[in-house]
Amino acid sequence: MQLKNDYIKVRKRTEDICAPLKTEDYVVQPVADVSPPKWHLGHTTWFFETFVLTPNAKGYTEFDPQYNFVFNSYYESVGARVIRTDRGNLSRPSVEDIMHYRRHVDEAMTTFLEQEQTPELNALITLGLNHEEQHQELLYTDIKYILGHNPLFPAYDPNKTAVSATKPTASWLKMQAGLYEIGYAGNGFCFDNELGKHKVYLGDYAISETLVTNAEYLGFIEAGGYNDFRHWHAEGWDWVKKNQVGMPMYWYHVDGQWLHYNWQGLKPLQPDAPLCHISYYEAAAFASWKGFRLPTEFEWEAAAPSLSWGARWEWTESAYLPYPGFTKAPGAIGEYNGKFMVSQIVLRGASEVTPPHHSRISYRNFFHPSLRWQFTGIRLAK
Amino acid sequence: MQLKNDYIKVRKRTEDICAPLKTEDYVVQPVADVSPPKWHLGHTTWFFETFVLTPNAKGYTEFDPQYNFVFNSYYESVGARVIRTDRGNLSRPSVEDIMHYRRHVDEAMTTFLEQEQTPELNALITLGLNHEEQHQELLYTDIKYILGHNPLFPAYDPNKTAVSATKPTASWLKMQAGLYEIGYAGNGFCFDNELGKHKVYLGDYAISETLVTNAEYLGFIEAGGYNDFRHWHAEGWDWVKKNQVGMPMYWYHVDGQWLHYNWQGLKPLQPDAPLCHISYYEAAAFASWKGFRLPTEFEWEAAAPSLSWGARWEWTESAYLPYPGFTKAPGAIGEYNGKFMVSQIVLRGASEVTPPHHSRISYRNFFHPSLRWQFTGIRLAK
Amino acid sequence: MQLKNDYIKVRKRTEDICAPLKTEDYVVQPVADVSPPKWHLGHTTWFFETFVLTPNAKGYTEFDPQYNFVFNSYYESVGARVIRTDRGNLSRPSVEDIMHYRRHVDEAMTTFLEQEQTPELNALITLGLNHEEQHQELLYTDIKYILGHNPLFPAYDPNKTAVSATKPTASWLKMQAGLYEIGYAGNGFCFDNELGKHKVYLGDYAISETLVTNAEYLGFIEAGGYNDFRHWHAEGWDWVKKNQVGMPMYWYHVDGQWLHYNWQGLKPLQPDAPLCHISYYEAAAFASWKGFRLPTEFEWEAAAPSLSWGARWEWTESAYLPYPGFTKAPGAIGEYNGKFMVSQIVLRGASEVTPPHHSRISYRNFFHPSLRWQFTGIRLAK
Amino acid sequence: MQLKNDYIKVRKRTEDICAPLKTEDYVVQPVADVSPPKWHLGHTTWFFETFVLTPNAKGYTEFDPQYNFVFNSYYESVGARVIRTDRGNLSRPSVEDIMHYRRHVDEAMTTFLEQEQTPELNALITLGLNHEEQHQELLYTDIKYILGHNPLFPAYDPNKTAVSATKPTASWLKMQAGLYEIGYAGNGFCFDNELGKHKVYLGDYAISETLVTNAEYLGFIEAGGYNDFRHWHAEGWDWVKKNQVGMPMYWYHVDGQWLHYNWQGLKPLQPDAPLCHISYYEAAAFASWKGFRLPTEFEWEAAAPSLSWGARWEWTESAYLPYPGFTKAPGAIGEYNGKFMVSQIVLRGASEVTPPHHSRISYRNFFHPSLRWQFTGIRLAK
Repeated sequence: MQLKNDYIKVRKRTEDICAPLKTEDYVVQPVADVSPPKWHLGHTTWFFETFVLTPNAKGYTEFDPQYNFVFNSYYESVGARVIRTDRGNLSRPSVEDIMHYRRHVDEAMTTFLEQEQTPELNALITLGLNHEEQHQELLYTDIKYILGHNPLFPAYDPNKTAVSATKPTASWLKMQAGLYEIGYAGNGFCFDNELGKHKVYLGDYAISETLVTNAEYLGFIEAGGYNDFRHWHAEGWDWVKKNQVGMPMYWYHVDGQWLHYNWQGLKPLQPDAPLCHISYYEAAAFASWKGFRLPTEFEWEAAAPSLSWGARWEWTESAYLPYPGFTKAPGAIGEYNGKFMVSQIVLRGASEVTPPHHSRISYRNFFHPSLRWQFTGIRLAK
Repeated sequence: MQLKNDYIKVRKRTEDICAPLKTEDYVVQPVADVSPPKWHLGHTTWFFETFVLTPNAKGYTEFDPQYNFVFNSYYESVGARVIRTDRGNLSRPSVEDIMHYRRHVDEAMTTFLEQEQTPELNALITLGLNHEEQHQELLYTDIKYILGHNPLFPAYDPNKTAVSATKPTASWLKMQAGLYEIGYAGNGFCFDNELGKHKVYLGDYAISETLVTNAEYLGFIEAGGYNDFRHWHAEGWDWVKKNQVGMPMYWYHVDGQWLHYNWQGLKPLQPDAPLCHISYYEAAAFASWKGFRLPTEFEWEAAAPSLSWGARWEWTESAYLPYPGFTKAPGAIGEYNGKFMVSQIVLRGASEVTPPHHSRISYRNFFHPSLRWQFTGIRLAK
Repeated sequence: MQLKNDYIKVRKRTEDICAPLKTEDYVVQPVADVSPPKWHLGHTTWFFETFVLTPNAKGYTEFDPQYNFVFNSYYESVGARVIRTDRGNLSRPSVEDIMHYRRHVDEAMTTFLEQEQTPELNALITLGLNHEEQHQELLYTDIKYILGHNPLFPAYDPNKTAVSATKPTASWLKMQAGLYEIGYAGNGFCFDNELGKHKVYLGDYAISETLVTNAEYLGFIEAGGYNDFRHWHAEGWDWVKKNQVGMPMYWYHVDGQWLHYNWQGLKPLQPDAPLCHISYYEAAAFASWKGFRLPTEFEWEAAAPSLSWGARWEWTESAYLPYPGFTKAPGAIGEYNGKFMVSQIVLRGASEVTPPHHSRISYRNFFHPSLRWQFTGIRLAK
Repeated sequence: MQLKNDYIKVRKRTEDICAPLKTEDYVVQPVADVSPPKWHLGHTTWFFETFVLTPNAKGYTEFDPQYNFVFNSYYESVGARVIRTDRGNLSRPSVEDIMHYRRHVDEAMTTFLEQEQTPELNALITLGLNHEEQHQELLYTDIKYILGHNPLFPAYDPNKTAVSATKPTASWLKMQAGLYEIGYAGNGFCFDNELGKHKVYLGDYAISETLVTNAEYLGFIEAGGYNDFRHWHAEGWDWVKKNQVGMPMYWYHVDGQWLHYNWQGLKPLQPDAPLCHISYYEAAAFASWKGFRLPTEFEWEAAAPSLSWGARWEWTESAYLPYPGFTKAPGAIGEYNGKFMVSQIVLRGASEVTPPHHSRISYRNFFHPSLRWQFTGIRLAK
């Protein structure tokens, strides 16, 4: 019954995140990476219908056979799907229809969970809940993008505050050379990309105990960091030029004052808050300008038990690659992680919008180095 | 008081067209040419606020100063505007907010119209009403696009029927060579592009009394018309290849049956209905295949009093160019027509979704030759 | 034997134009509209081989069967062709190979022309020679582009001078309203698009006796013409913004001095020379700024016998459309003109690089309104 | 004097590689990654002029100050440069001019090298020679692309043979878990990206003693490998779909026969030759289909002394990242490697066109995962 309770709790939290929205906010997709909130609501539901109920729950009736086409994200095994950039063109199914879909699946799932299930099914449902938690974080990031790129800058919730202040980079945690165990080794849930616990040799290194602040990053901007190619990867420099980037996403420089968009609307920048919404290119350029570097994901994991983390997803210097012995699960679930293991950078930690208890020190998040709409930040190493 | 009554009637009709929509349908912009219905609702209102109320109505308070940025369409004189392809990214202002905006402006306008106004102001308001009627037609075309490109093919209104059947091309109206008077010469409202009544010499010609039907066009498809470059303009042939076009917009060939999307959803194609939703390239290729041609806009206008027209906007063979003596009005209103007089084709007539009494035989509609989402059809000439 | 002499003369002139080039200059294609000079040399030869020799000259052996693929331009009837933008990627056939190809075809053609041929064949060969003359003009324009866009600005020929000075716009030729005969009515050669002599009614108008000079256009630039949207078509304004256009092609503003690239390299701008290398958008904007307009092609043709023309192709206000009764020839030759009759603007006259006696007052040149690499200029009307 | 002799030898070899070309072959750039051969000839010369002669050789006169603009590749420190995709638009400087440039610089360099120079200068000149050797390999790959994508498929040299046959994957070299030393530790020349010798812990693994053959890869094609998304990275699958890839570059399937383009022209595919010209995506998909994987660059380096390598650059599973302690050299030379350390995959080994003695077991080559014009192949691991 624990799983049933978890199911109810997770599903409710998804809808709570959307509660402050107007119907129109559920529909739009301003850029390809941002999905309409109503798509998240449907897609997470589709996961339980397609992978749990349809093949396993006797007598279950699909809500609408066409929804597979609409709400499949990238599972090639499971049929045609709406192209990612087209999601924002679909006014139907309506929010109301999708809420009915959620009710339909939730009723079937809670009935289903009252019975004893196989360990394999329990694992699959747990995966579905972790999957939904990932979309909870995406809902926050996508909602922030939708409202924060609207010329009216509407608040999401006038009472929701952002992460509190942090201290500037000052103290370093020194780590000694040696073999470290990397990867998940517990008994709870983890994703397949964390498995394959293995030894990694690390030389001596030091890692910052705190995250880079807005004020520190402002120093980089004011020192002309965006105009000095020496700190940038060639690909990052092209990205800066092509997109005319000169500050983090959601920052604005208006009449000499620095502003940023946050849950409460457009507000003065908080100098001592941890920097947020920067690309890997910017993270690496900042580190180079400071005379330091980013930690590898292994350095991060080895040091993590002694660090205070969780406010920002932290860009590492590691590309997203398989651990020794990595294998994909058979079937559609096997498409979860492995097929993204090229051209992505690992981020470690968690952010202020990551669901509670969702992350852990072996957790490997990953994004393309140009992306900034996630709650990303910088921790330095040397 | 006639103008006040007209104002109330036109404004109401706009909202009636939107009545069958769900809130989500007001928001999306599947392609650049299609604007979100809520944008039309706001933009037509912005016209009256910006050009009539703000400069002329004492004590009028703008509803929201930021709306100028959101609802300006292409008037460079009136400040910054949201890029056309970005309209579908804006979830705010909400539909409810825009309805409040309409109420706010409508109240001010009806009060304003209770007083005597100058002839110039009356002309401007009449232009605003004709402008809103043009957007009423665009609302129909854009709503059809939004619903008709949704994989669920929702009906707009299960009781709304499309234009009734027509006869195939059979009888020709013969016209004699001579000088004809072209252009608007009445006392009522017309657009600036119709002015400059002038003589045009036409040789002998004949023009079809009826429009091309779906069945006739099906003959072109089945004869391989889309695969035979000889009937196509080079630019049209590239367009066919690049977009893999093989039938009119909204047509589907499923399991050997021809279907088309209409107000009631996806339905069997009506063979004797007048063909609709084809580009100029297709119109010209069909005419070439039949051994005929399209009429010029002058041939059309000279023959129009003897023709039955109004079901489809009819592609002519004429490019959209100024009439002799054409001049633009000073200020923003001068941007209405003249600046589009390059790379556009003239369409004459009216369509099943043109507001009643909106068109006339001197009316010059115009679109880029590739566009198909309007209710466009074919009349042949020889 | 006249035709044989004409053949020899025209073919030689093509090679004379290329004489000052280095081998490397024959190869490149800096933009899609500019073809490599060696392609012109091969393509004009391919015309005679494909349309005259292969079907008509007994015992003729094709030089290389693969050349059809390489040197076909846009004749869909005659098989696959190298995509236009790929021409500059082909280092082979070499210039030497193409010169052998020319020798091979020229020998066969001169032998063939020693015999009496049918009138149809004579007409086809005359078309081939006019076609080659059109490519002679393109050779000049493309060579100028290749050398004039090279950062070293090499001269084409240090002894070749450009067109001499002209007078500023001052005197107007007044034309009376009435019916005018338009189109070719002689016995010599003309293109199919000039045929269909027909009446056009023109109102009173006046047309400038001289072309706009560089100095006059400089006035437009200095008055901020490129920054004032009011003079521009919407499409032209987008073109200015997107391409950051601020002056004619080949003009440079360096250290306060106006320079332009010409046959002798980069030289000071000549104020009293007729303006050259402007788009239709620029021509129309300049005319609007001056308070005038461009003539229609009919106004131009009616006035031409009294005008001094030939230095620049003159943008008209007319779109390129078929004359009454226009029909395409059957077969590949029918692709010559008709399929371009959409989205193009008519230019009348001739330019300093048009072959002698090639043009005439009924001649209709046409290009897309954005193109500037031809020797285009402005004549005003009112 | 050794350095002078090396200089003469390396510089001569570059020109020997170009000897079979026609002048036209030196000019074209069919895709952005392929540079015109004349550009390579100039750019390698520019390196010695800019970094060695101009700052250090008393009385040296630059050949032409504009050449810095033309022949700079990507050194942001050294001024403006021709955009990479524009190199193929430049017909000048001519091949002859560039050969004069080479003579000019070679004379100054050989005089300069007769005098004793500082160790720093010697290191810089050695870097210049290694740089030129890298461009020798690029000359081969770019020439193959230029000729092999020409519809006439000209031979480069009818007497030049490709690499000889290899054996299919059969025997595996077993490697034991433990700490391995990675990175260059000798006294000779190496690139900065090989420095920072450091320990890497590897688990037990096995690596194939031979490279994958054409016949083995044909098995993958015939088993439908290009149509089965399960073996592909998501990014690779998109690449296959978008580019309609179905075989290695230079392979053709004509009338049931497999052909490939090689130095001697279009020839039957050799089944037992080592596979060549595949992307990382294809390498990884093939490995997945076989049930194996690619080795990491560390696994490769640890095993290399026992392997026979050198026919193909071998895709590894490693992203191109800095070694511990990596630092860039100050100034323009520091742009050599570090700025490419994102979104690239490491290749190890050497190819049949790598200059003799140029590579070594610590050598790290790198390319974007989509690129195929290099001589790339596959070695499996498990």
